[in-house]
Amino acid sequence: MQRWYVVAAGDDVGSTPLARTVCGERLVLYRTTDGAPVAMNDRCPHRNFPLSAGVLCGDEIQCGYHGLRFRPDGRCSFAPGQDRIPSRADVTTRPLAEIGPWIWVWMGDPGRPDATRLPDTPWFDEDGWSHVHGMEPLDARYGLLVDNLLDLSHETYLHAGLIGTPEVAESPITTTVDKERGVVHVTRRMESVECPSFYSGSTGLESPIDRWQDIEYHAPGCYVLHVRVAPHGSVPDGDVDDPRAAHLEVLYAITPIDEHRTMDFWAVCRDFGVGDPDVDRFIASLNREVVLQDVVALNLIESRLGADIDPPEVSLKIDTGGLAARRMIAAMIESELAPTNA
Amino acid sequence: MQRWYVVAAGDDVGSTPLARTVCGERLVLYRTTDGAPVAMNDRCPHRNFPLSAGVLCGDEIQCGYHGLRFRPDGRCSFAPGQDRIPSRADVTTRPLAEIGPWIWVWMGDPGRPDATRLPDTPWFDEDGWSHVHGMEPLDARYGLLVDNLLDLSHETYLHAGLIGTPEVAESPITTTVDKERGVVHVTRRMESVECPSFYSGSTGLESPIDRWQDIEYHAPGCYVLHVRVAPHGSVPDGDVDDPRAAHLEVLYAITPIDEHRTMDFWAVCRDFGVGDPDVDRFIASLNREVVLQDVVALNLIESRLGADIDPPEVSLKIDTGGLAARRMIAAMIESELAPTNA
Amino acid sequence: MQRWYVVAAGDDVGSTPLARTVCGERLVLYRTTDGAPVAMNDRCPHRNFPLSAGVLCGDEIQCGYHGLRFRPDGRCSFAPGQDRIPSRADVTTRPLAEIGPWIWVWMGDPGRPDATRLPDTPWFDEDGWSHVHGMEPLDARYGLLVDNLLDLSHETYLHAGLIGTPEVAESPITTTVDKERGVVHVTRRMESVECPSFYSGSTGLESPIDRWQDIEYHAPGCYVLHVRVAPHGSVPDGDVDDPRAAHLEVLYAITPIDEHRTMDFWAVCRDFGVGDPDVDRFIASLNREVVLQDVVALNLIESRLGADIDPPEVSLKIDTGGLAARRMIAAMIESELAPTNA
Repeated sequence: MQRWYVVAAGDDVGSTPLARTVCGERLVLYRTTDGAPVAMNDRCPHRNFPLSAGVLCGDEIQCGYHGLRFRPDGRCSFAPGQDRIPSRADVTTRPLAEIGPWIWVWMGDPGRPDATRLPDTPWFDEDGWSHVHGMEPLDARYGLLVDNLLDLSHETYLHAGLIGTPEVAESPITTTVDKERGVVHVTRRMESVECPSFYSGSTGLESPIDRWQDIEYHAPGCYVLHVRVAPHGSVPDGDVDDPRAAHLEVLYAITPIDEHRTMDFWAVCRDFGVGDPDVDRFIASLNREVVLQDVVALNLIESRLGADIDPPEVSLKIDTGGLAARRMIAAMIESELAPTNA
Repeated sequence: MQRWYVVAAGDDVGSTPLARTVCGERLVLYRTTDGAPVAMNDRCPHRNFPLSAGVLCGDEIQCGYHGLRFRPDGRCSFAPGQDRIPSRADVTTRPLAEIGPWIWVWMGDPGRPDATRLPDTPWFDEDGWSHVHGMEPLDARYGLLVDNLLDLSHETYLHAGLIGTPEVAESPITTTVDKERGVVHVTRRMESVECPSFYSGSTGLESPIDRWQDIEYHAPGCYVLHVRVAPHGSVPDGDVDDPRAAHLEVLYAITPIDEHRTMDFWAVCRDFGVGDPDVDRFIASLNREVVLQDVVALNLIESRLGADIDPPEVSLKIDTGGLAARRMIAAMIESELAPTNA
Repeated sequence: MQRWYVVAAGDDVGSTPLARTVCGERLVLYRTTDGAPVAMNDRCPHRNFPLSAGVLCGDEIQCGYHGLRFRPDGRCSFAPGQDRIPSRADVTTRPLAEIGPWIWVWMGDPGRPDATRLPDTPWFDEDGWSHVHGMEPLDARYGLLVDNLLDLSHETYLHAGLIGTPEVAESPITTTVDKERGVVHVTRRMESVECPSFYSGSTGLESPIDRWQDIEYHAPGCYVLHVRVAPHGSVPDGDVDDPRAAHLEVLYAITPIDEHRTMDFWAVCRDFGVGDPDVDRFIASLNREVVLQDVVALNLIESRLGADIDPPEVSLKIDTGGLAARRMIAAMIESELAPTNA
């Protein structure tokens, strides 16, 4: 599994150890005195006490049970009652990358993190953009969130009044797959449609609008929705200039906790109301409300699914994106299980 | 399994979808605009969302996730983003029968409901009778409730002060079995005994009374207790005329939710205090109290039983009715599992 | 399994039936009118109702469901609706021994309790000693509590400020094993060390003190910590006279409830402040606080351990006592599983 997943918001990692589980692996996160984030196995190798229940001593983390201490590189630096430190007492660490509001953890071979596989999220840092973000835990398998995000026609029903209007479910989609890069694209272009409160309240646009939803899903853990909302009839002037339109980059980082739980990290970047705290608050509040509607729905579905058996499903045209994503994930898993000559 | 079970009180089914599970099968119930009750599989065949978390659109139910709609006959009438409705998107429905306060669901072959198997409960509708009813969910297997109801000697201990007196446990019973009809009869006749508060408070009778308990158990899901309480020495004048006595028909509909949970529907019909709301309240309150004592006791026993293994039990003379009921249920299950020439 | 375990504090057993589970066996405890404690199987053999949910009738316990009654020797003395009592209706009982504040139950062959295996706890009854006691339930396997108590270096970290000081973890230990008697001894002698608040507050001693911790662990269920705290430099005058020192006997009775839960009975005996209720309160309060810190830590570890698989551990010098205890318990289990010529 050569993958990065978002493990935490940078804001949440500091001098108090933070416990997080990714793909069933328990991790403890903290920052050293120079601010660098650290992730290591959240188990003291002596008697299994979670290191996340311990305390920091400078750059080291000290077990709360018998006081063993570990350096940021996982090396055990102190064991009680003896001078010699057994090398078996070291703990494994995980490479991290902090980009914008998120800390990504490399879940592949710890010695060989592949930075080229980190998704490109320039809007976090570029001038002319602002962003808000949050995370909600899901009691549902990550695949249900992938299904959810790849088929936005559910906005019409589950998120009516916030982000959904009748036209979303009615408008056809175009799905393309880039196997090489592991990306699924789903495009929906709506012309002269109702402006939902999410966009009218944040941009001041009024119906009718032209509304573009261009999904870019980097399987398995990163989803970017490029949104363009503009007064009906206004068209971009070339690739860059589009002054009458508002643009949003709605990002979801989908991190499996275990087979039945998921962390749903979200961020909304925008090129309007930049630096305006009222717009920050409005968008953060509404997007969280939308996410919580998803949480309720997906948790309900998970509670109905058995541990092993999925009932047969009937797929529709709206599902071409979600089905492509499922095939992409299945192919990734298969290629990892296949014998290699590396 | 060619059986009817009570699935809901009619009062509880209306324009808000109601989720119920019978024998492990999840159902959603609602009423169409003309008042007819509907039961269908509580799973949208598209992406497994529970239909009971959706809303009604006239006579149809609409999934809360992507808006698929289903007619009362289970046919899918709308799918988002396309005109053609896949026939595989239909959901199965279950025949229902509404009798008195209860809605029965046919758990056999959906196309062949057998109305002749519905129990006869004339007291719900006849002149000269009133009734009250309720339901309590049990965290116990239905067999524990069958045991409980077939051996009323427990009234003396578990329901002392309400419906139990020492004479119940002391009085011998007569048990007969009608294999053809699948009915177990248990009869207990008590003469010149104490009148428990349940009957003194509702009928005004005073000790000593003659008290008859004639159980008719239609395996597996319907139990009728014919009660006659009368001043000591008064005898019925022929089969019909019995003016000095009070009669009650205490009904229990025993509906398995799954292997370890049960719905305990109860109703008490009476031929005295007819139409009197004070008597309604008194009987409803006391019978609910009795049922809740059973719930506590049976849940305790269930929590002690393993998932599979029943510890050996010592049976007594009081258990002849309960043991006959167990044999009846076992025979029904066996006959259903046997190969048939149908 | 020829063993005694503490099943309850004597204070908790009286005329209200008490349910306790030891090694997965459910027991009901009560006292007869002459004060003798009784333990019997907590299941009515008729229909599995827990006898602990019943009531006492004199020296007998009556089932709350159908009224069967059992004598203190387990013999069924009453069955409803019949005169003959089936002998199969008897329930098994367990021998008990009440010593000081604790009631021990014999979990071996019920007919052959071996009183010679009861631990010696003279301080509960001797003149010149006072004691306090309590119990906390653990959601952790008993082995984690054995590990905990056999390695007191954790006091420095988990119980800092109460009973732990830096010197505990720093001081070397001596471990000896008496295979014959099934006892592990761990000794730690600290000279001229800080006096923790547990001892300064109860004895009035001030730093520096000499502090002895002599552990005597009678596998699997009884642990005695002989503590001597004294002004630095004062030495006992022979085996008996040690007037300038304070002595404490800190006892833990470790009783498995089942494979993942444990009762942590504790008692602290002392030869100072005898009969002083303020010292009682001080020591009881602080020792309970220490025990609750253990509970939190051990429950955390248990929640991380799988049901079956223990992750590899790295053991240190401080663990020689705990490892000896594990070997002792493993040998006891093995000898019980081996074929015998008895």
